[in-house]
Amino acid sequence: MISSKPNAIVAQSGGPTAVINSSACGVIQEAVKSGRIGRVLGAANGILGVLQEDLFDISAEKPETIEALKQTPAAAIGSCRYKLKSIEESKADFERVLDVFRAHNIHYFFYAGGNDSMDTADKVNRLAADSGYELACIGIPKTVDNDLAYTDHCPGYGSVAKYVATCAMEAGRDTEALYTHDTCTIVEVMGRNAGWIAAATGLAARCSEDAPHLIYMPEASFSFEKFVSDVKEVHKEFSRVFIVAGEGLKNEKGKYITADRGAFSEDSFGHVQLGGVADILKAVIEKEVGIKARCNKPGTNQRSAMHFASLTDVNEAYMCGQMAVKAAISGENGKMVTLVREEGGEYKCTTGLAKLRDVANGEKKVPANYINDRGNHITEACRDYIRPLIKGEAPITIGEDGLPVFMRFERKLLQKKLPKYM
Amino acid sequence: MISSKPNAIVAQSGGPTAVINSSACGVIQEAVKSGRIGRVLGAANGILGVLQEDLFDISAEKPETIEALKQTPAAAIGSCRYKLKSIEESKADFERVLDVFRAHNIHYFFYAGGNDSMDTADKVNRLAADSGYELACIGIPKTVDNDLAYTDHCPGYGSVAKYVATCAMEAGRDTEALYTHDTCTIVEVMGRNAGWIAAATGLAARCSEDAPHLIYMPEASFSFEKFVSDVKEVHKEFSRVFIVAGEGLKNEKGKYITADRGAFSEDSFGHVQLGGVADILKAVIEKEVGIKARCNKPGTNQRSAMHFASLTDVNEAYMCGQMAVKAAISGENGKMVTLVREEGGEYKCTTGLAKLRDVANGEKKVPANYINDRGNHITEACRDYIRPLIKGEAPITIGEDGLPVFMRFERKLLQKKLPKYM
Repeated sequence: MISSKPNAIVAQSGGPTAVINSSACGVIQEAVKSGRIGRVLGAANGILGVLQEDLFDISAEKPETIEALKQTPAAAIGSCRYKLKSIEESKADFERVLDVFRAHNIHYFFYAGGNDSMDTADKVNRLAADSGYELACIGIPKTVDNDLAYTDHCPGYGSVAKYVATCAMEAGRDTEALYTHDTCTIVEVMGRNAGWIAAATGLAARCSEDAPHLIYMPEASFSFEKFVSDVKEVHKEFSRVFIVAGEGLKNEKGKYITADRGAFSEDSFGHVQLGGVADILKAVIEKEVGIKARCNKPGTNQRSAMHFASLTDVNEAYMCGQMAVKAAISGENGKMVTLVREEGGEYKCTTGLAKLRDVANGEKKVPANYINDRGNHITEACRDYIRPLIKGEAPITIGEDGLPVFMRFERKLLQKKLPKYM
Repeated sequence: MISSKPNAIVAQSGGPTAVINSSACGVIQEAVKSGRIGRVLGAANGILGVLQEDLFDISAEKPETIEALKQTPAAAIGSCRYKLKSIEESKADFERVLDVFRAHNIHYFFYAGGNDSMDTADKVNRLAADSGYELACIGIPKTVDNDLAYTDHCPGYGSVAKYVATCAMEAGRDTEALYTHDTCTIVEVMGRNAGWIAAATGLAARCSEDAPHLIYMPEASFSFEKFVSDVKEVHKEFSRVFIVAGEGLKNEKGKYITADRGAFSEDSFGHVQLGGVADILKAVIEKEVGIKARCNKPGTNQRSAMHFASLTDVNEAYMCGQMAVKAAISGENGKMVTLVREEGGEYKCTTGLAKLRDVANGEKKVPANYINDRGNHITEACRDYIRPLIKGEAPITIGEDGLPVFMRFERKLLQKKLPKYM
């Protein structure tokens, strides 16, 4: 069973998405197809699994299990938030990674993740080069936050965008129906530093009376005074207010509003309101505008909503996985696969490559021309950018019980060859 | 245009659902088909719309708008939470209702809602009878809470059940993937007095490692000590914990745990934790178990999730609307349409009728044999009850922009004939 061909590791890192498994599927199926790679090993829980030598043979899984990755959300191989620091500070960790690679004849490393993961992959790659160990490291972009530089967009974003926009439409109709009682709805979406997810809900507003009426992104500095006046204005016009807020809103001083609220820290009972952005906005609205507000916090549902994922996103995520393998085999190294939007009217997306190091140090925020002048909604340019990414509904299999069917790996762990590390 | 035939009012009340508009569609289409009803009028915002004489001619809307009700969540006619008290206390309101009915030749009143709405419909009906005004009042069950008595289940419940179970599956995979970092997820679902929605998430647990591992319903008295021990036990077995909690959990003294938490009121910083059930459970877990927890609160998304609604639910909601009209025409009065589960192996559902007064005074909680002995999950009997209700996926129309298409009425308001009332 053991091939003399070099083995590959595929690993997943950071917050899961609806389509990171599609990328893994692309890697695995392309690796098999190439005939150039021995076994594809999964590192349980990303780089943590490598360090702990928790590897399992994905090549030994049933082909239908591999195929079903395309319909399974989250990270089937296992994810982590373990961050390696500089090579100097985390020297033991980096050397351990190479030891594990050597022990299992691993010469390909495919790492799907965000900035931090690209940083890790880059450092592993540089250390391997310095040590004369032959290794091809290729990164695969993954983040619902859509904040990676050098790629037009990130796999994972199209699906969260489609889902949060749909939820805004639906909950918007709920607020519209019950405006005489629950007049205001506040949705808190993910995005600590970038407002891409909040921006996507803007697609739900096909006309001015549609939800959301107000969208606040971390890129536009937040003022409670302006917010109260925005809410009053919308309420006057539509008798209801539907608000979307990114979780990482910051004030004029660049501080998170959850930490620094100035005169707006007490609710109408004089209590300091704790909690996330939505809780705080709710307290401010109830005190300053005097209307009843309620909060929706989709939380991890937004990034795992496979049941209404974007087909475009699933296909592009798969393509990124495929292209990572093709790039590695063709001799590329230290690169991340990027998505490239072709010029011209019709949306068409191909792939490119960017240096891991560049991606690791970059960050892509919502640009100023995607945010309206008042800092409370998106522009047409923003809609044009997001719209193609949410198109199509990814197929899912529904079981006899009326619920989706997801796969799980059998996860036959490889025998460990090295002493326990952590 | 004005027919000499008696007109009908159709109105919606209380929290919206994904399928209350399907019931309205059933009423409207059956009324037209019957040939016995003049115009079908919509009362904007339920009984509040009647009181304010805010009526619009639904018969004048385009047939495709009416048909699209089946694919539109929330309450397209408009809902309210306006509660009429006893006939004595709200005498003016009740008489106003009859005045409006008289002014617009309304002799049929179809009211979709929960207990309170059935109570209102019953009182209107009795007053009409006492006043010698000919009126057929038929109620249509509607509530995601599934807590109406005399009906096997309520339209709206199957869709929320399908959605929350699917979200539990998906977010459960997210927790499973990222257990090394975010070890525990708590989902807060609707249901202040009845745990039916929380119970539905139990369908997601096809095996013991599947989410949710723990389900808490208001029917089982909640103990923080037991909760902490449950969480520790699950964490020991699976290295992760996925919890679903109904918003209305109560302690041994029958008090909401959001109001009375005894020794568990302070978080690990010594602050009194405010907020809903999920926030409180999160604080307790982080302090007493020492693992990181996060909260998902789908809020109004759960009751408006048309994009993954149950086809069974949509069809049954429509059937309830149809049967309300048939019952009224055949001379029934003061009744609510009920759903009747036929005996036998295969699920089959027909309709029946129950007295409005009985429904108004009843409440159906999750029975003891649907909750496991430890009070932290559902039984097979519960699964057997819920499973057929979530089957099938309701069709939706997706626009060119990749998002669902919902209808809105043109809402041509009738000219008011009476003086302003409120």
